[in-house]
Amino acid sequence: MKKRIITISRQFGSGGHSIAKAAAERMGIAFYDNQLITEVARQSGLSEEFIRENEEYASHSNSFLYQLAMSTAGTYGYPSVYQKLYEAQTKVIQDIADKESCIIVGRCADYILRDREDCLHVFIHADNEHRAKRILEKYGATDKTVSQRIKDKDNRRRNYYRFHTDREWGVAANYNLALDSGVLGEELCVELICKAMEKDN
Amino acid sequence: MKKRIITISRQFGSGGHSIAKAAAERMGIAFYDNQLITEVARQSGLSEEFIRENEEYASHSNSFLYQLAMSTAGTYGYPSVYQKLYEAQTKVIQDIADKESCIIVGRCADYILRDREDCLHVFIHADNEHRAKRILEKYGATDKTVSQRIKDKDNRRRNYYRFHTDREWGVAANYNLALDSGVLGEELCVELICKAMEKDN
Repeated sequence: MKKRIITISRQFGSGGHSIAKAAAERMGIAFYDNQLITEVARQSGLSEEFIRENEEYASHSNSFLYQLAMSTAGTYGYPSVYQKLYEAQTKVIQDIADKESCIIVGRCADYILRDREDCLHVFIHADNEHRAKRILEKYGATDKTVSQRIKDKDNRRRNYYRFHTDREWGVAANYNLALDSGVLGEELCVELICKAMEKDN
Repeated sequence: MKKRIITISRQFGSGGHSIAKAAAERMGIAFYDNQLITEVARQSGLSEEFIRENEEYASHSNSFLYQLAMSTAGTYGYPSVYQKLYEAQTKVIQDIADKESCIIVGRCADYILRDREDCLHVFIHADNEHRAKRILEKYGATDKTVSQRIKDKDNRRRNYYRFHTDREWGVAANYNLALDSGVLGEELCVELICKAMEKDN
């Protein structure tokens, strides 16, 4: 089946956002990354600020309290605010996929859309040296070392993914295409994604 | 740096061998899969039959006896026959990589050549349905179910890889390119590998 939707999962600092944006522009299809926040806010009633802080980067996602909030949600007849957020995110992603050809970055979209045959699931990664360079260029230095920032963000994404799916983040078999942007370069990653989308059966 | 060598790791039944062979033909470079056996036999003095049975598919590789043989090798002043085989294989792969542009399939070549900047490391996988179909077409039925054969071979490769490297088999970050041959198809996999090799810096 011809693919019309791409999900892009990515390591922090791998350039996944830029690659996804460039690929969407080249293919002339919609691009969703932070744009999802407004729609999730509208549907859930949660503030954009809360969503920004608590979606996939949530520092809570590897904490005991977060896991407790998620696992007990519903038990007492009301969903936790984290569950509400994840459910709204899931609904928004499914609606977008029904509506138009697009690229969706992060937020377990690969898992949420796993049963659709019109999706190509991509993972972007790079070695720590390339990521550190990119993070400093893009976000600047902070009081934490770059390697600590890489480790923290990856752990949060890994925990968040593990919690909401029955899968391990970054396992090749979960994606149709996994690319090392450090070695291949961003431009070639965009070309390979576009090429992979050309297949029509 | 311009890449001149490709290592291809693959799940059993994913078509990795055919894809590697077709890519080598298209690029006009050497192809090493079973061809390695003759050279390893020559260098090690081990029989081709022994090598065929005990290289990466070795049923011993997940057994306690194999691990004991490997871990105690050298302790008593002599290498085990399994260690001798792995060392001969390593030497042959390094010599080939020094000598010519080529594609090398399996045998931890991605790990053995991990420090070379002129290598592209590829992983080929597919879902079980595609693999089962391919295995039956290529190797026919046996007294074991196809899903059991897939599980056994994957486990053996995973254990062998884990034993000889400090890595987990099939983790996207260990490869520059990971391809789902079931969804993309063999022809497109060949094209994507050739395209990834075009980059010259």
